[in-house]
Amino acid sequence: MHTGTAKIVLTGDRPTGKLHLGHYVGSLKQRIELQKKYTQYVMIADVQALTDNFHHSNLVTQNVYEVLRDYIAVGIDPSKTTIFLQSQIPSLTELTIYYLNLVTISRLQRNPTLKAEIQQKKYENNLLAGFCIYPVSQAADITAFDGELIPIGEDQLPMIEQTNEIVRKFNSIYGDTLKEAIPMLGTTKRLSGIDGKAKASKSLNNAIYLSDSADTIKQKVLAMFTDPNHLKVSDPGNIEGNIVFEYLDAFHENKDEVIALKEHYTRGGLGDIALKNILNDTLQELIAPYRERRSNISHIEMQNILYDGCKKANKKAEMTLYKVKKAIGLHYFDEKFFEN
Amino acid sequence: MHTGTAKIVLTGDRPTGKLHLGHYVGSLKQRIELQKKYTQYVMIADVQALTDNFHHSNLVTQNVYEVLRDYIAVGIDPSKTTIFLQSQIPSLTELTIYYLNLVTISRLQRNPTLKAEIQQKKYENNLLAGFCIYPVSQAADITAFDGELIPIGEDQLPMIEQTNEIVRKFNSIYGDTLKEAIPMLGTTKRLSGIDGKAKASKSLNNAIYLSDSADTIKQKVLAMFTDPNHLKVSDPGNIEGNIVFEYLDAFHENKDEVIALKEHYTRGGLGDIALKNILNDTLQELIAPYRERRSNISHIEMQNILYDGCKKANKKAEMTLYKVKKAIGLHYFDEKFFEN
Repeated sequence: MHTGTAKIVLTGDRPTGKLHLGHYVGSLKQRIELQKKYTQYVMIADVQALTDNFHHSNLVTQNVYEVLRDYIAVGIDPSKTTIFLQSQIPSLTELTIYYLNLVTISRLQRNPTLKAEIQQKKYENNLLAGFCIYPVSQAADITAFDGELIPIGEDQLPMIEQTNEIVRKFNSIYGDTLKEAIPMLGTTKRLSGIDGKAKASKSLNNAIYLSDSADTIKQKVLAMFTDPNHLKVSDPGNIEGNIVFEYLDAFHENKDEVIALKEHYTRGGLGDIALKNILNDTLQELIAPYRERRSNISHIEMQNILYDGCKKANKKAEMTLYKVKKAIGLHYFDEKFFEN
Repeated sequence: MHTGTAKIVLTGDRPTGKLHLGHYVGSLKQRIELQKKYTQYVMIADVQALTDNFHHSNLVTQNVYEVLRDYIAVGIDPSKTTIFLQSQIPSLTELTIYYLNLVTISRLQRNPTLKAEIQQKKYENNLLAGFCIYPVSQAADITAFDGELIPIGEDQLPMIEQTNEIVRKFNSIYGDTLKEAIPMLGTTKRLSGIDGKAKASKSLNNAIYLSDSADTIKQKVLAMFTDPNHLKVSDPGNIEGNIVFEYLDAFHENKDEVIALKEHYTRGGLGDIALKNILNDTLQELIAPYRERRSNISHIEMQNILYDGCKKANKKAEMTLYKVKKAIGLHYFDEKFFEN
């Protein structure tokens, strides 16, 4: 149980696919630690995911329970962490509408994170309003839960800056109401894809999933990018850019053994297959219990978790919305009116 | 009482001031007729008013009860018309967020009504997101209440077009869910200001209010623009552009008497003061009962009207939101979940 004074952490995922080892290293592992120290809210951001998936919304909606399964499987504990669905928290959209009055369209288009995404998605000439304003919706998420600490990567810093600009503007017009958020840098890590070309991601089809079967994991490990010049077992091998070693560093429990493997590989005599078998064992051992727990969670159990999470999240977000609307002056009914 | 099959009319006002004769002629009078034939919703659009008044929100919030007073005073009947407050209907903001995915920023900026307002308000270089997207929020209002008939002036036609574009886009992606709205043209009329320069408006300080005292009305009538060349009583006077005659046409009950006055004025011998006294009598007679009813409505009565109206409006808007979220796929909890 948390005391009321524990700091609040807000994180989340867009439910556009099952979660993989990239998510595990990048955020899931940290959340298991964070829930011990903080009041943690984890949001399944279906509304945000719709801003660039509205034309195939089932991609989003069908993955909500998959993501939840992954959360529970790795040990995000609903009794410690409030897991909720963005679309079930109406206050978030109300907050967004009020915050939209505090931001110009050109400021949003200058937001470096959004700008990069617009370029990447080639949205320049057809920028959808929903996508353009999603940083404001993110400000609503963060402020709704009094998110003091937001675990993010460097590339997401402009989003926190945007949120805090809105917070300062709101407070300057309507009086001190909202809290600024603090980015928690260094808590997120990147994991390369098995092809070694970029970070592990669903769209690049280069990730190992928490739900992958033992066979699939083995196939993916065997297909992993190593040192293209390491042709014979006896050749000295290169560790730099060698994805098998990146994964061993990330997942092997025994750091000394990894050091020894690196030395052996560098001087020659350690074949890729032997090395990949070691990584395979490591990953099978890591993922097997997750895969099992994942498949043992019933639908009704998940509905209960989400229902309870949304209830708690609604309570919290409604409190913020109440303060925000009161600050703006949108509280028309006298308190005593409701007593009659 | 309305049957379930009566067509639905949606209208409303931004609560940025008390209502005046321009509103009376332009919309209030029609609403009294419309409520007899249709299921009428009248929205006090405080959220929309905030998009260009967010920095002095009290201008909006303090006028909500003033506008309501004016509604009741002229005969908009809460037992026939659902009067509600936009800010108290959360479904409207949810709908707005989902519709934002269906419209580009450039399309909004090309909306002729919005474009004209942006120019008028000199917002070009600092277009606030909330102002930019208010046509989408209007689409939410209209669709939420299945607004089939929307009484508007010609200048508002692009807003209905924008709404119907969203409706068609939504239906084409998510299946037939929303109804297109039909503009009711010719139901709104314009009234010039007492200065004759433009339409009566608060900002130009050239309007006669439903709450004006008898003295204020008289002063305003005496200050009215007539024919600047009509210097002596015996001079022939001009009716074209003569505001006193515009008001007599709009408010005098006896059309034959107005025709006779026009003839007399045109041939000379009818002085401005005499003419204005006739208009003054007409307006005093019209406004006196409104002013009285206006001041007799208690605060608790108004709270009850708004509370009941918001309750009814919420029910209706929630039904639309349910259909919209179901069409998108955002209905995660099995119906039977709630039976447990």
